[in-house]
Amino acid sequence: MKKNIIQKLIDEKKYFEIRKYLNDLNIVEVSELLNQFESSELIMIFRLLSKNRAADVFSYLDSEHQEMIIKTMTDVETKNIFDELYFDDIVDIIEEMPSNVVKKILKNTDAKDRHTINLLLKYPENSAGSIMTTEYMDLKKNMTASSAISKIRNVVEDMANVYTCYVIDESRKLEGVVSLKELITSEDDEPIQNLMNRNVISVHTNDDQEKVAEIIKKYNLIVLPVTDNENRLLGIITIDDVMDVVEQEATEDFHRMAGISPVEESYLKTSAFTMARQRISWLIVLMISATFTGRIISKYEDVLQSVVILSSFIPMLMDTGGNAGAQSSTIVIRALALGEVDTKDTFKILKKEFLISFIVAIVLAAINFLRIITLTKTPLNVAITVSVTLIFVVIISKIIGAFLPVVAKAFKMDPAIMAGPLITTILDALTLTIYFRFATMFLSNVIK
Amino acid sequence: MKKNIIQKLIDEKKYFEIRKYLNDLNIVEVSELLNQFESSELIMIFRLLSKNRAADVFSYLDSEHQEMIIKTMTDVETKNIFDELYFDDIVDIIEEMPSNVVKKILKNTDAKDRHTINLLLKYPENSAGSIMTTEYMDLKKNMTASSAISKIRNVVEDMANVYTCYVIDESRKLEGVVSLKELITSEDDEPIQNLMNRNVISVHTNDDQEKVAEIIKKYNLIVLPVTDNENRLLGIITIDDVMDVVEQEATEDFHRMAGISPVEESYLKTSAFTMARQRISWLIVLMISATFTGRIISKYEDVLQSVVILSSFIPMLMDTGGNAGAQSSTIVIRALALGEVDTKDTFKILKKEFLISFIVAIVLAAINFLRIITLTKTPLNVAITVSVTLIFVVIISKIIGAFLPVVAKAFKMDPAIMAGPLITTILDALTLTIYFRFATMFLSNVIK
Repeated sequence: MKKNIIQKLIDEKKYFEIRKYLNDLNIVEVSELLNQFESSELIMIFRLLSKNRAADVFSYLDSEHQEMIIKTMTDVETKNIFDELYFDDIVDIIEEMPSNVVKKILKNTDAKDRHTINLLLKYPENSAGSIMTTEYMDLKKNMTASSAISKIRNVVEDMANVYTCYVIDESRKLEGVVSLKELITSEDDEPIQNLMNRNVISVHTNDDQEKVAEIIKKYNLIVLPVTDNENRLLGIITIDDVMDVVEQEATEDFHRMAGISPVEESYLKTSAFTMARQRISWLIVLMISATFTGRIISKYEDVLQSVVILSSFIPMLMDTGGNAGAQSSTIVIRALALGEVDTKDTFKILKKEFLISFIVAIVLAAINFLRIITLTKTPLNVAITVSVTLIFVVIISKIIGAFLPVVAKAFKMDPAIMAGPLITTILDALTLTIYFRFATMFLSNVIK
Repeated sequence: MKKNIIQKLIDEKKYFEIRKYLNDLNIVEVSELLNQFESSELIMIFRLLSKNRAADVFSYLDSEHQEMIIKTMTDVETKNIFDELYFDDIVDIIEEMPSNVVKKILKNTDAKDRHTINLLLKYPENSAGSIMTTEYMDLKKNMTASSAISKIRNVVEDMANVYTCYVIDESRKLEGVVSLKELITSEDDEPIQNLMNRNVISVHTNDDQEKVAEIIKKYNLIVLPVTDNENRLLGIITIDDVMDVVEQEATEDFHRMAGISPVEESYLKTSAFTMARQRISWLIVLMISATFTGRIISKYEDVLQSVVILSSFIPMLMDTGGNAGAQSSTIVIRALALGEVDTKDTFKILKKEFLISFIVAIVLAAINFLRIITLTKTPLNVAITVSVTLIFVVIISKIIGAFLPVVAKAFKMDPAIMAGPLITTILDALTLTIYFRFATMFLSNVIK
């Protein structure tokens, strides 16, 4: 739609109209539009943007489009853009660029900024330090409300967030927090130390981003300060960055629960070869494990030979056990991720799953029994064997499905690996063993 | 820890110390602490809170604790608390309370507030209207920056967010948006109409909360205005409420993907009976579907009787097909949920999955073939049958696993139902059919 309008204007060389059209759009919409163009046209449209919007639009572009633009820009143009960007965005961009582009970016930043960028790049991946930015508003406690407001007025353009101001001492140690709301409603000569809240919630640069998300959510914060070992303020993390973290962590869990190594890039951008590699290791492990299930069948070959009909119930029993276990493991994995339950609740979880599985097992076994004896010509003793097996399989599956994620958590592993595929493989072997044991017991008179 | 300190102070009747201890804690920490006490002690500690903190603490309590407190409070106390709360929090509380408690709450609110609450309660569940609040900052375009700031100063206490102000006309139609940052940095007599941004991004009261989350994320907003059919401003939604929406939607997808009907309450609070009901319907559907897989085995009984060893590979083939399909469906379901892909990308997705599955299938089949011929005494023609089946099964599973979620989306269904359990059941039947067809072809000389 929008792309066609611009394409038409480009073909007609109506550059002034393009500029006018882009000015009426939101920054995000302009970047969405630019992402649809390639090389020369992209650069041409980007150059038409007003100077103050160019940097903002740039920060929303795909990394390959950012790369194209940096490569064709002059040093001055590069500097103009990177001067306007926040450090957390610069770091995100640098991490995606090839080394020659990174060199060009760093060459065109001031020595001081380069120092900050290098510091931020050194924080471990997924740490608070790696997602923070350093453009925060700091005040001193002996300032008055009005002098604080004048300071804010002067630097407002360069700050990621001016609505939450942090009070620091001479050695940059965090002493308090005060909101712009409090500053504008207080008397002009009120000292900051009377206004500030000394009970500041903060995180350490090395804290995991998952902890950052938990704290922001728990305390309903918009901004969270990040400090070092000496409680010196180093940066801030804003809630919109945490929203990305929450989605990223959920995505990781989704993938891990399906036996896929975490994927960093979006689906369409990851190559088929990388994706194949991310999926194959678990498939190999699970394939080999499943051969043990096969051995159980071989072991009871004589039982199957005597009562051939038994084999036709194998898929139903294996699938139902797997599904029942996957339900419990999913529920528990998600409850652990959201902090609704913890390892100390193990007993409560097992008790609840036992009750649930008991109800579910009885209903399923009853339906199954009625279906077999009314719709098929299966002998009564086989129908009983299958139904009794079903009861045990469902109960055991649900309890194991709920227990393994808690065990993983207790051993500091990610509970998400104890999901569907792994649980199913474990339960398959168990299901068959239970089935053949009952069959040997209940059908001993017909087994040769 | 904290609970023990308070318990000790209660036992020693040191009420002044309790008050002092609570005053040093964050609001959220106080509510966490109160949630650990029951009835009479809870009420006693709650009454010790300073008036201006009581309402905030109250809004963070569990609903059963909120209920206990309202039941024992006087009408005046109830009014004091509910006057301080934001409407979106009041509505959340009311939705959890029994009718006698709701009556007491509504009796102690002004006629005007009661009207607002009733309006908010009427919006459909999960709509923008149901999660918005009505305490927003509105300005008129002919105001000056300084008169706007004085207005903000006067009402700051009652507003959910004063950092983003909305400009409305006489009939409350949304005309623009201006930030407090812009107001404090502009000249005192600058009219708002010169400062405001007319390109306001907003949602409709009936829009789904998922759409709200998408827009907040896409445009990096902290606040989003909600309007009616005539573009009249009715409320705002803040990013912290949207964070809950994002988590809730992810949880729903996790549950649906494991064949569980959406669970509203947290794990430990939902009864075993409710949980059993939420899980049983899919288990029944899948159990009955799996019997069709069983029929395929019965149909090829003679093949199994002739080459008994074939049955021992059934679990491995079924599991690998199911796992391969579950990987693809999970990847595609999540990519659809995040908006990384859409139905228009169907062809790209299928092409990519074909490539991935081809690589994965060849590797798995090779490993499997080598394992069978080196570690077991399986005849070569059986090993070939199993390995060729594996190649076809993996490729077909991945393509079906990726295709079904996109089909669901195209038919306006939730792609998340096309996940592991359902895919596995469909693929099991397919896997066995392919297996027995190949067996009949490759092993015709040994089959009686």
